[in-house]
Amino acid sequence: MVRTPLLESPVLNDRLGGRVLVKPEMLQKTGSFKFRGACNRILQLTPEERRGGVVAWSSGNHALAIAAVCALLEIPAHIIMPESAPKMKIEGARRYGAQVRLYDRATENREEIGARIAEAEGAVIVPPYDDYKVMAGQGTVGLEIMEQCRDLGIMPDHVLSSASGGGLVAGIATAVRTLRPETSVYSVEPAGFDDLARSLACGQRVENASGVMTLCDSLMVPTPGALTFPTNHALLADGLVVNDVEVRVGMANCFEHFKLVAEPGGAAPLAAILSGKLDVQGKVTVAVLSGGNVDPAVYSEIL
Amino acid sequence: MVRTPLLESPVLNDRLGGRVLVKPEMLQKTGSFKFRGACNRILQLTPEERRGGVVAWSSGNHALAIAAVCALLEIPAHIIMPESAPKMKIEGARRYGAQVRLYDRATENREEIGARIAEAEGAVIVPPYDDYKVMAGQGTVGLEIMEQCRDLGIMPDHVLSSASGGGLVAGIATAVRTLRPETSVYSVEPAGFDDLARSLACGQRVENASGVMTLCDSLMVPTPGALTFPTNHALLADGLVVNDVEVRVGMANCFEHFKLVAEPGGAAPLAAILSGKLDVQGKVTVAVLSGGNVDPAVYSEIL
Repeated sequence: MVRTPLLESPVLNDRLGGRVLVKPEMLQKTGSFKFRGACNRILQLTPEERRGGVVAWSSGNHALAIAAVCALLEIPAHIIMPESAPKMKIEGARRYGAQVRLYDRATENREEIGARIAEAEGAVIVPPYDDYKVMAGQGTVGLEIMEQCRDLGIMPDHVLSSASGGGLVAGIATAVRTLRPETSVYSVEPAGFDDLARSLACGQRVENASGVMTLCDSLMVPTPGALTFPTNHALLADGLVVNDVEVRVGMANCFEHFKLVAEPGGAAPLAAILSGKLDVQGKVTVAVLSGGNVDPAVYSEIL
Repeated sequence: MVRTPLLESPVLNDRLGGRVLVKPEMLQKTGSFKFRGACNRILQLTPEERRGGVVAWSSGNHALAIAAVCALLEIPAHIIMPESAPKMKIEGARRYGAQVRLYDRATENREEIGARIAEAEGAVIVPPYDDYKVMAGQGTVGLEIMEQCRDLGIMPDHVLSSASGGGLVAGIATAVRTLRPETSVYSVEPAGFDDLARSLACGQRVENASGVMTLCDSLMVPTPGALTFPTNHALLADGLVVNDVEVRVGMANCFEHFKLVAEPGGAAPLAAILSGKLDVQGKVTVAVLSGGNVDPAVYSEIL
């Protein structure tokens, strides 16, 4: 596990009139925070479960993390990925030695494919977010933020994290608000996939309309997780939403001010700050940058 | 100061058959290691010297570092930069409030311009490398590498750092080889600006031919430093040289495996490893990535 640093840019702080620190999880092993949850879950398998291996489905980052942890522990890994996932994520999972099964997002159901493989292989399903051990693993991001802020002699007023199924932001909110209840934690989602923001607003899990597109390939889920939503409903201050143009600006600012490669979903929290979705003036704000797995061609075009 | 992490990629390690760790100084304040030396030098100015301010010349990274440290300490900064320096570096120095004086590399002498300003303003010249306090500041990269390797339970066989005037590699070599004399430290330079490699080979400072070009804008000096060369001659194992194509491959690998934005000179040590300039099989090798200040247009084209 990499203890990712907390970075800030005096130039950006000046421009925003507040202190904005980023937690760069693209520097985490496999290029995203997902390695934390995968580690915590897979290290708790019994010796017998290890022999049967692991099944997981993912648009990319969870796949890479599962594949890498399984490679380290010499456990068989079966990964179900959409055909439309970024090429580098599919190839990456294969390079770690995982068996990758591609599926069509429009016509196939990944949960059903996963259940079939699990039964045939005697393998354990590791879900991307709806699992308390996975959520706890992602929560180490929040623990580190609080320790690192304490070392800097500051306390965060706001913490922002992107949300897909909501495991990362639920883990972070649990850690951060246990240690400091006064801190506000916000989820950030792309327009069209703002199921968590709308669910927080009405108090129950709602679904996204189908057929919508977003630049944020890692943040496309139909609805908040059954286990993550109660935690997020209890602990989050609000759900913020950003559009593709704002995400591009976020990515460019990660490049310019932090020399970090952010994938679209990874830049969403910085995008929310830069587009004024949250008042950061005079505050200490931490933006979690969740990952950096983006195809070079896509990245160049955005820069 | 950022204590930059030590990062590695299992995929890259597999490919190279050894353990390669990178020390990402693009995450340092102002986007390069230069902040370390500038801090160490400027913090030791007397109150009277502070009032007169600081003069420095630089193709970019030293300029940004001096400007940022002076801004923090509210000291006037005068920076002399070549007209051909990357736009983002010139604008960056100005954003920190420095007075920037541009000069023509072909027809003007930056040392003479600097001396004139120093005299007129009563300012202290802070050289980019030929200064023991600057070298000592850069050497903190080497101290951190040794501490971080110790925490990981490993010891580096090789440490590679790019060299322009040679202050960074001299500081690193002093720290690393004091703590572990068996470690070999290498400088890496771009073809056409391999003055240090050739000087190490013949035992005295030689000059580069004029009129040569390189992608590595931050590694263009005519000859090794008068103070840095004796240290480097005494402590370095060898001087490695990379061409522009190898540097591009190094930059693309920083993107792919580490999600880091490396400027051309910053990727030179990884370029040396990837192009087989050093045998890393079965070894522990640390590559210092010195900076990430590159124009987005240049970067996109290279990706």
